[in-house]
Amino acid sequence: MNWEIIVFVLGNILKITGGLMAVPCLVALAYHEPQGWYFFWTAVISAAAGFVIARREMSNKTYHLKEGCAATALSWLLISAVSALPMHLCGAIPTYTDALFEMISGYTTTGSSILTDVESLPQCALFARSFSHWIGGMGVLVFMLAIVPSSGGSKMNIMKAESPGPVVGKLVPKVKETARILYIIYIIMTVIQFIFLLAGRLPFLEALEITFGTAGTGGFGVKNSSCGDYSPYVQWVVAIFMMLFGVNFNAYYLILTGKLKEALKMEEVRGYFIMIGAACALIMINMAGTADSAADFVRNTFFQVSSLETSTGYATVDFDLWPDFSKAVLIFVMFIGACAGSTGGGIKVSRLIILIKSMLREIGYYLHPKSVRSIKSDGKTVDEATVSSINAYLVTFLSIFCVSMFLVSLEGRDLMTNFSAVLTAFNNMGPGFADVGPTKNFSQMSVLSKYVLMFDMLAGRLEIYPMLMIFHPVLWKETFEKRGMRKRHSR
Amino acid sequence: MNWEIIVFVLGNILKITGGLMAVPCLVALAYHEPQGWYFFWTAVISAAAGFVIARREMSNKTYHLKEGCAATALSWLLISAVSALPMHLCGAIPTYTDALFEMISGYTTTGSSILTDVESLPQCALFARSFSHWIGGMGVLVFMLAIVPSSGGSKMNIMKAESPGPVVGKLVPKVKETARILYIIYIIMTVIQFIFLLAGRLPFLEALEITFGTAGTGGFGVKNSSCGDYSPYVQWVVAIFMMLFGVNFNAYYLILTGKLKEALKMEEVRGYFIMIGAACALIMINMAGTADSAADFVRNTFFQVSSLETSTGYATVDFDLWPDFSKAVLIFVMFIGACAGSTGGGIKVSRLIILIKSMLREIGYYLHPKSVRSIKSDGKTVDEATVSSINAYLVTFLSIFCVSMFLVSLEGRDLMTNFSAVLTAFNNMGPGFADVGPTKNFSQMSVLSKYVLMFDMLAGRLEIYPMLMIFHPVLWKETFEKRGMRKRHSR
Repeated sequence: MNWEIIVFVLGNILKITGGLMAVPCLVALAYHEPQGWYFFWTAVISAAAGFVIARREMSNKTYHLKEGCAATALSWLLISAVSALPMHLCGAIPTYTDALFEMISGYTTTGSSILTDVESLPQCALFARSFSHWIGGMGVLVFMLAIVPSSGGSKMNIMKAESPGPVVGKLVPKVKETARILYIIYIIMTVIQFIFLLAGRLPFLEALEITFGTAGTGGFGVKNSSCGDYSPYVQWVVAIFMMLFGVNFNAYYLILTGKLKEALKMEEVRGYFIMIGAACALIMINMAGTADSAADFVRNTFFQVSSLETSTGYATVDFDLWPDFSKAVLIFVMFIGACAGSTGGGIKVSRLIILIKSMLREIGYYLHPKSVRSIKSDGKTVDEATVSSINAYLVTFLSIFCVSMFLVSLEGRDLMTNFSAVLTAFNNMGPGFADVGPTKNFSQMSVLSKYVLMFDMLAGRLEIYPMLMIFHPVLWKETFEKRGMRKRHSR
Repeated sequence: MNWEIIVFVLGNILKITGGLMAVPCLVALAYHEPQGWYFFWTAVISAAAGFVIARREMSNKTYHLKEGCAATALSWLLISAVSALPMHLCGAIPTYTDALFEMISGYTTTGSSILTDVESLPQCALFARSFSHWIGGMGVLVFMLAIVPSSGGSKMNIMKAESPGPVVGKLVPKVKETARILYIIYIIMTVIQFIFLLAGRLPFLEALEITFGTAGTGGFGVKNSSCGDYSPYVQWVVAIFMMLFGVNFNAYYLILTGKLKEALKMEEVRGYFIMIGAACALIMINMAGTADSAADFVRNTFFQVSSLETSTGYATVDFDLWPDFSKAVLIFVMFIGACAGSTGGGIKVSRLIILIKSMLREIGYYLHPKSVRSIKSDGKTVDEATVSSINAYLVTFLSIFCVSMFLVSLEGRDLMTNFSAVLTAFNNMGPGFADVGPTKNFSQMSVLSKYVLMFDMLAGRLEIYPMLMIFHPVLWKETFEKRGMRKRHSR
């Protein structure tokens, strides 16, 4: 384990956290809020600590996959822990555990909140919450790769640890360039949505916050009613942009470079739109005749499907009251989630496609036992290592899901609450059903449950393995053994 | 597709069904029940039809895997459909759909019932229900292989299609011998339990029926209270034998042939007992202090865990009233189920073990990307094809689970009912939670839901693929194409 490089990454993360915390200060300045000082001092101290820690030249610039994983997991923990400080100190959130929950929920773009009355928060704290969605959406370390001066060494393993999806799509050979292109696409789309929302007469700050929540597929609202009180125009804009931010960003890169046809041919993108369409159709058939106005009905259905499929979690209506068949459809799209390489969570459409193909192959084997078939995706053969690692991913996902459900169920709530609390945390969704439904929140959960859900949110966002890695005994054993060896050598 | 051989198998199944239906006739004779005539005529007609159909010599005696699958699935449908006739005609069950549900539930050893008052049934019908558990437990076709005179040809593919578990354990080189040994072990254990129950002063017929339900891990009770009203001694006997019938029968074969050490070393058997122990411990810790008597508490906990882990479904208490953590533990053991090569259902412990190992391998990959590891089971390397087919099994399982839940949820019941109805059907369990809990039954479900659950019961018992196969278009396309070709040739 190369700790030097991990410390270097963490130092840079502290610098970045400092920079990020400076933004809410500006909001506090504009709104004359004294709470801004807490953000200011956090920014200063964090940035200073970062410069101290990351000033050393590294002797070894190689990232192995394990260093990539450890650096990623620790970075996310660090940025959440530091950002939670001013949220708690400024009085917006009474306990540090709750503040940490809120910020992990923010950075992982989950959008589960422990706040009962968001409208009472100071503007700077509200902004910091939403801003964390935007940063977490594309990835904290991808952000770092895009802005921190190149330090040499292979950074692919950091990208691999943080990017959602089974295969990392490097757009261009250089990792740094890829990170930049992704952020540029992200920023362009964010700006477009922001302009559309301003055109819908949303106040400047509110439009920005809702845009951040949509872009990161996070889902923190700034009103107690989430998106329920906005005009139909604003709701349509949010619904459509949620859907767009759930598309694999490679598709946008292809479109930008003039390869529209290739983008339209991407199996994952097609599967994603088919799923959204099918889910809307099923729910509308199931609930036909229950709505007063057809326009509201269509908009609410599309909004909810788009919100839950992309794991955003905004709500315009209380879908916990929908009939059970519709709820089952919603749970299904929650599980699957958005495209790989988007800002959305879940198992990912591309994994689903490969899982279905491996299922069909197995059935085919019963028909013709001697046939050898390879699984193809977008015309290319998927190597067996990827197929088996996707299968292992599903198993790991389900295992952690079970263990989390056990721990959360110790609280003694009903199974639907436990199930949906873990599901929404793991898939970075936000609201669930029953006691954690869209009109409820997570404040009443026990401290143990909150920490379990925090772990799940991070595990879901980082696709499990980086979070498991930092608890893996072998990792620590190796570290201590090496340190012991070094000590013996230096004697 | 070699239809000749499938017709031959189905003919034999009709003969066997005839033989099986003769047994309830004896019960009717002993109890002077006129309803016995329906069983008598079904037996006669079915056996006669069987002799007519299976009299032809076959020109081609090769079973491919697809013929094995199709023969298996169709045999199970046929035996259930025929056995349901007298149940309906004798007036025990008002509709044929319900009778079919009851008999599929019987043969698949599920034990879900649509009857609200079993005690009002004639003795012959009650016996026929329980007897179906015993036949279905070890397998209808394994039974056929064991008793029908050898017709030559490879029968391994029939065995493979019907045996539970990821790998078929042939005990001895010959399939027919393996089938016989399995049935001998099965009969010995059945007789021992029967004697133990008689010693507990259970009436002769009732002891036999409860033994059948335990041996097949079925769970049809003959009292409305399931096993709740029996003495503690009887409950202990049933609980222990449920656990024993959930053990991989290979272990008993090893013990019988003097290889006790090898039997104790089997990873699956160890994992199975560890799971039962852990589940009991967790539930007892969770519910400590709620029980009046320690003896009742321990017995009820062990009984329920043993019943649900082996997918039997007998109940001594209403576990739907247990705290949620304990229910979560029960759901978990329901999902996993018993050992492969036992009469129990579920995903099977051996699959779980290999899934966990493939998960650990994936984590290991993150630590040491270049390492190549193979998965070992009982000291032997599991080939990658088996690992990937186990993974595909899980995916197929989950897919059918989702589709079934969607269809059942159209009824508009709560999610817990839908979820547990599908879970218990698929894992051949019996009672679920909420509206299908141990004190409720399936009679109030819609006809659509009943057929969906019937499919799930068969799919669960036959490990999915045989049931999927008979709906696979390719299978039928091939058949019709060949027939078309033959017609053209004969012109």
